[in-house]
Formats: sequence, C-alpha cells, structure tokens
Amino acid sequence: MTAPVATVMTANDFLEQWQGHRRLTRKTIEAFPEKEFFSFSVGGMRPFAELVNEMMEMAGPGIYGIVTNEWKTFGELGMHSKGKTKEEVLKQWDEITRQINDLWGQIPEGRFQEVQLAFGQYENPGFKTILYFIDNEIHHRGQGFVYLRALGIQPPMFWDRS
Amino acid sequence: MTAPVATVMTANDFLEQWQGHRRLTRKTIEAFPEKEFFSFSVGGMRPFAELVNEMMEMAGPGIYGIVTNEWKTFGELGMHSKGKTKEEVLKQWDEITRQINDLWGQIPEGRFQEVQLAFGQYENPGFKTILYFIDNEIHHRGQGFVYLRALGIQPPMFWDRS
Repeated sequence: MTAPVATVMTANDFLEQWQGHRRLTRKTIEAFPEKEFFSFSVGGMRPFAELVNEMMEMAGPGIYGIVTNEWKTFGELGMHSKGKTKEEVLKQWDEITRQINDLWGQIPEGRFQEVQLAFGQYENPGFKTILYFIDNEIHHRGQGFVYLRALGIQPPMFWDRS
Repeated sequence: MTAPVATVMTANDFLEQWQGHRRLTRKTIEAFPEKEFFSFSVGGMRPFAELVNEMMEMAGPGIYGIVTNEWKTFGELGMHSKGKTKEEVLKQWDEITRQINDLWGQIPEGRFQEVQLAFGQYENPGFKTILYFIDNEIHHRGQGFVYLRALGIQPPMFWDRS
C-alpha cells in the first residue's frame, strides 16, 4: 500500500511553526541577565549569545537564500553581527522576524521540494533546509534553558509560542 | 497577494523527519554512561532517563492516538514504562520506532490538518501534535547534550541523522 497523498502542512503553517519558535527564543533571550547572556555557560559550551548569533546567521541569510538561491553572509547582506548588548541583539532578532515575514510570500512555487545547495554546502530540498534552521534553534534554545536553570532562573514555558 | 499553494513536505518526508531525530536521540542515549543516564543532571533538572521517558510517553501513545483518535497511556497500551537499564530503555525505544513505522501508513487521509484533542487535552491539527512530539524531543535532547558536555563526553553530531 502506498502512503495516502495528504497535505501535511501549508506554507502558512510552516511559517507559523518557525515564527512561534522564534517568539519563544526571544523570550528566552529576555530571561537572561545581561552579563550572563554573553558570558555564562555549562560544560565549556558557548554562551547563549553565541548560540543566538548562530541562529540569526542561519535565519537571516537563510530566508534570503531560500527565496533567491543566493547564499550570502550577514556582512554581504549589510546586516549587523554580534550585538554587544541584549537590546542590540533583540533589535536584530526583530529585524529578522520582519524579513522572514516579508520574504515568505516570495518563496517560489515548488521551492520547498526543490534541492538547493544551502550556503554553498548543504544539499537539501528547501523544506529540509528550513527545518534545519528551526531544529537547530530548538536544540540550542533547550541548552539555553539549562543555562537558565543553572543560574536559578525559571525559563519560559516550552509550549507557549505566543 | 495570497501565498502560493505548494507542498511543503510529503507524509513520508514528515516520517523521515521524526525518525531521523529519533535516531539521533538513540545515539545520545548510547553516549551516556549507565549510571549518569539515570542520575546526572544540571541545575536541578530531571536526569536524561526521565526526559527520554517523556519522549517515549508522547511518541508511543501519540502515534496510536494520531491514527485511532484514542488517547491511551503507556500502561493502557500494554507498553513497558521506565526501563531500569539503558538496554531496557533502548529496547523500548526500538519498539516505538517500529510502531511509528508500522502505524504511519494507517494515518487517515486528512488527519494532519484535522483538529484532534490530543491526550484529551491539547486541541491541535495532527501535524502540529506530531511537530510538538518532535520539537519536545529536540528540546530535551539538546539538554542531554549539555549534560554530556558537563560530564566531559562528546555528544553525537547534531546534523547526523543516520
């Protein structure tokens, strides 16, 4: 028996899945004290600011690449990099939120299933590239939750994507 | 402009997304020393064995619920719970892997977009319920990675879903 043809999710569902996670990550950034955001970690890992920077380096140039199939760096896109304060980081986070919303409707028909060489290195259909951005964010944000717990701070609720 | 109608991913893509993450989590379980799997944690959190048990309590009864719309517990489904050794846990993990593969093709047409009351509590379309299982696993596995790092153990590669 072959699997039934069925819509798993719509393009708008997929956008909402991404942005819901991005809202939760934003709350996680907010939960960190200023100093510890840039300095605290467990087990020799990177501080949460570095993990958040990685998320933004994927998401910002990533949505641009999905739409245009041109894979540029933060710098090449004229984006700031590595904010020095939580406020700067949150400002950049919000810029990327807007970019994703603005560019989403420009994703070409068929691009989710079309294979691209993301960032010149990762050969995957578009949906898989985007899932990787989301999954990588969930993974590192989960690590940020541990940092918060180790600091005695209650993280946001995992299920709250508002 | 309305968003273009486009297939984000097929049902088989979605299954592979789930099972790829489950393979990575299995490797993460394997990377833990026996004792620390059940006892070690950071910041007063649950040990990785407890997080893994939560993943299995979602995935096993969850795939059954998605297919049948009956939401049962581990016990009601005659499944073991809370293995006392890594070997027991991995055996149960593998049983759930097989159940997901076996039941996936029985997901009724339209179920991914149909709203269900998952576990009698969470009102969501099927795709969102399944995404929650996957995202919750990624989140807690990321925390397991921190535990491993804190133990001086190299976690598996995040991108390796083989």
